[in-house]
Amino acid sequence: MKKYAFGVDIGGTTVKLGLFDKEGCVLDKWEIPTIKENHGVQILPDVANSIKAVMAEKGITEEDVVGVGVGVPGPVDAEGNVQKAVNLGWDVFNIPKVLGGYLDLEVKAGNDANVAAYGEMWQGGGKGCSNMVAVTLGTGVGGGIIIGGQILSGATGAGGEIGHIHIEDNETEVCGCKNRGCLEQYASATGVVRLATRRLAKDDAPSVLRGEKLTAKAVFDAVKEKDAVAIEIAEQFGEYLGKGLAAVAAVVNPEMFVIGGGVSKAGEILFDYIRPAYEKYVFHGCKEAKLALATLGNDAGIFGAAALVLKERN
Amino acid sequence: MKKYAFGVDIGGTTVKLGLFDKEGCVLDKWEIPTIKENHGVQILPDVANSIKAVMAEKGITEEDVVGVGVGVPGPVDAEGNVQKAVNLGWDVFNIPKVLGGYLDLEVKAGNDANVAAYGEMWQGGGKGCSNMVAVTLGTGVGGGIIIGGQILSGATGAGGEIGHIHIEDNETEVCGCKNRGCLEQYASATGVVRLATRRLAKDDAPSVLRGEKLTAKAVFDAVKEKDAVAIEIAEQFGEYLGKGLAAVAAVVNPEMFVIGGGVSKAGEILFDYIRPAYEKYVFHGCKEAKLALATLGNDAGIFGAAALVLKERN
Repeated sequence: MKKYAFGVDIGGTTVKLGLFDKEGCVLDKWEIPTIKENHGVQILPDVANSIKAVMAEKGITEEDVVGVGVGVPGPVDAEGNVQKAVNLGWDVFNIPKVLGGYLDLEVKAGNDANVAAYGEMWQGGGKGCSNMVAVTLGTGVGGGIIIGGQILSGATGAGGEIGHIHIEDNETEVCGCKNRGCLEQYASATGVVRLATRRLAKDDAPSVLRGEKLTAKAVFDAVKEKDAVAIEIAEQFGEYLGKGLAAVAAVVNPEMFVIGGGVSKAGEILFDYIRPAYEKYVFHGCKEAKLALATLGNDAGIFGAAALVLKERN
Repeated sequence: MKKYAFGVDIGGTTVKLGLFDKEGCVLDKWEIPTIKENHGVQILPDVANSIKAVMAEKGITEEDVVGVGVGVPGPVDAEGNVQKAVNLGWDVFNIPKVLGGYLDLEVKAGNDANVAAYGEMWQGGGKGCSNMVAVTLGTGVGGGIIIGGQILSGATGAGGEIGHIHIEDNETEVCGCKNRGCLEQYASATGVVRLATRRLAKDDAPSVLRGEKLTAKAVFDAVKEKDAVAIEIAEQFGEYLGKGLAAVAAVVNPEMFVIGGGVSKAGEILFDYIRPAYEKYVFHGCKEAKLALATLGNDAGIFGAAALVLKERN
């Protein structure tokens, strides 16, 4: 009887792998390096060998395995075709076919942010919710949208790129995407640092942040100490993110937003700043959407990848 | 053999009905008045009687009919529960059950904007496209989102309410939804008139629009005559709508936007003003989305309603 699945989360430095049972418990997890030489041609064979080694070690046969799910840092369409994952050096090919050629197992693939969202829906902060948006506040702002329990990948795999919603007309600096005024420029970890740098330069108001190394963590730690300048920065952050999530809500009307990534480690205090702006800008029919913290951390990717092959069997 | 379906589009003044064959041809269409007295309790019995009368007249039996689809001006969830359609006086109830109680036929229901989008996908401007956003530029700005060939109704039936994306921080007037700065305040027919009124009041620049009754049609007619002031107004309209559609694209990454409603009667010249702003603000992965005109006009609702019951049988 098929009782296991593998979840694979391919990152620019390491590949995370997990062995799961059908109930969604992770039985083992490990990492291998991501070898990016020669357009990353070695990555999938390395993944296949690592899975085969674990199967041999644990006495698991192909008959025992439902399949392998894979999350990739780049656009992936509904058939598992990757459209250039620049961080890996990958061009365009079909992941299920290629990895399925090395491993005689069913393979499914998706974009890493979408797959992580799927993991949070399956076993994380969005458990039990079939219409949700996962928002990752990390170096950038990523998004993953789940509608009716399914990942919304979009026409070209760019569904859920909510970090690049235009939110500020007066921005002079350029975003990583080449546009100006993207949500990511204010609500990511680097965005919070940018907001803090600008606020501190504006005047001489006293703040525990002065002289410190500015990080999103330092800003929200100072908010918890009731530092007035840090609170202003958090209000700006909340204004931008609340406005961005209100735009997302007017499009997909989710039941819940699940907030993860490094910035989310500040905890529920974030919601004190996001919620008022969200309610100010959102269409009234979407006002009740819940805000929740992601709970799977860096494991969301392997959970969601395993769910790609396990969920529809349940 | 089942070979017919009925499409019903309930509006605040009239109910439009259509008889369709399975290939999506409309065989007959007619209207009945919408009786809103007593919380609109008469509306569904009237629809049932009208359908029964047409079936009797044409010798169609229940065995010949796949079902009846219904579009409603209010939020409707995936099970066909309407959540207060204020324009009809309706509270909360299940449309398929109630109408199915009067007619012994399968009934499906959806929000009217979403259903019209479905119609445009089935037989209109988005034919052959399974990831699209229909945008209705009428008195307001409505939206209907189709993902993987399915209507995205959202957690509370407010999916696709793209007219209420916040797009302008400096707006002083209040939108119908009570917020300020919604896309609808600039890109609807009334929004174009508001932009025109403001522009004309700004200075004395000559324009054929001066002294005329301001309408969206008058503005775009003047654009076609190369009236400089009208072109400025069209540029502002395009800037707002392009920016709004770019936000929608970053969320759902559609293959196509299908533009309908009264304003769209101006024709493809609209795209000259929407496209540059769209491309300026959109995430690069979504830049290729097509813009097309809706083709079904006021019949999109009955087409989409019929498609609710016909599409999944095809």
